[in-house]
Amino acid sequence: MSIKLTYFDLRGRAEVIRYLLKYGGIEFQDVRITIVPWGNLKSTVPFGQLPIYEEHGKVSNQTIAITRYLAKKIKLAGNNNWEDLELDALVDTTSDLLEKVVNFYHERDTERREQLKRMVLAETIPFYLSRFEAIAEKNFGFLAFGRLTWADFFFTTTIDMLDAMTGMNVLKNYPHLQGVVSNVTDLAVIKEWREKDKSSVVLANDAK
Amino acid sequence: MSIKLTYFDLRGRAEVIRYLLKYGGIEFQDVRITIVPWGNLKSTVPFGQLPIYEEHGKVSNQTIAITRYLAKKIKLAGNNNWEDLELDALVDTTSDLLEKVVNFYHERDTERREQLKRMVLAETIPFYLSRFEAIAEKNFGFLAFGRLTWADFFFTTTIDMLDAMTGMNVLKNYPHLQGVVSNVTDLAVIKEWREKDKSSVVLANDAK
Repeated sequence: MSIKLTYFDLRGRAEVIRYLLKYGGIEFQDVRITIVPWGNLKSTVPFGQLPIYEEHGKVSNQTIAITRYLAKKIKLAGNNNWEDLELDALVDTTSDLLEKVVNFYHERDTERREQLKRMVLAETIPFYLSRFEAIAEKNFGFLAFGRLTWADFFFTTTIDMLDAMTGMNVLKNYPHLQGVVSNVTDLAVIKEWREKDKSSVVLANDAK
Repeated sequence: MSIKLTYFDLRGRAEVIRYLLKYGGIEFQDVRITIVPWGNLKSTVPFGQLPIYEEHGKVSNQTIAITRYLAKKIKLAGNNNWEDLELDALVDTTSDLLEKVVNFYHERDTERREQLKRMVLAETIPFYLSRFEAIAEKNFGFLAFGRLTWADFFFTTTIDMLDAMTGMNVLKNYPHLQGVVSNVTDLAVIKEWREKDKSSVVLANDAK
């Protein structure tokens, strides 16, 4: 098999890549490594980070870059450069939200962690999701152009991570964003994959 | 004029966009706003962030997305999808480094700030720059393909921000990365622009 994806035994940041590979019907080797071999592997990987993606022996890192590359391959990208710009901006904004929540989740100081969590729940998440909700409403349950794109896939797997890190259903009050997620998770091939992949969404916090 | 870039009166995150517009000989309106009107403007801007880029009345946010869009326009992108993936990964990795340094720079707790600064200087920056240095050496003073791409531009303006935030010359021990930066800053049109744009690189820390 010429395509290989390497990540921890988690859904996490790699799941969007897996979704796109599944959606595109692209065969791949889904390599899941545990913490111990990772210690040995880390120094051999570009910038010491997973996931890495290999195709015909060439290697790349960076989730969003890999996801965009696959999106072009399987026709989930824009139809012109401006559309690609709009999708890229939506994805990077989704990623900004994710990083802010990751920031709280990884905080080790208990008091600061509670403070960050309060801010994330009361301010950060509503700030972003209310704006995304308006976008999804205008785009008929998609993030752009009234049709399925890789921005919807990236958003969907991000929501899984936000739910796991906050212990909440963050989309509860956002019906159009629930629609965005359903438009991805109701796809037969994604539904089937979700039933199969029961790995944790994120690393449990006490395991870090 | 059909193109308009809006940012604070800083080089900061918008400078790479200005460089690309200059390099491409694209006329634009370089709108610089001060903190007071920004208070009023913030709610009207997608996701409350600058820079924003407008072309023929259409608006987009997200620096990297805008930069990639311009790079395609002015032939500083990859020659095929895999090359674009490599450039995207380099840029996102450069951005990871930037965000880690921004994190220290924005910290308000004095003790924690010192601790973060020590880690940034002793670990984060050397970790990333030693890897980038090896890449630049292999690519003859560029980050990829032995030729000028938008990754070199993004790297160059990021280094300006790192220097400003740390108060150091972070490339001092990295001759090939100094080459990457020179390959951008020695371009006549960029040299001329740098002589003209004397705005601060980042917001002074006590001004926040």
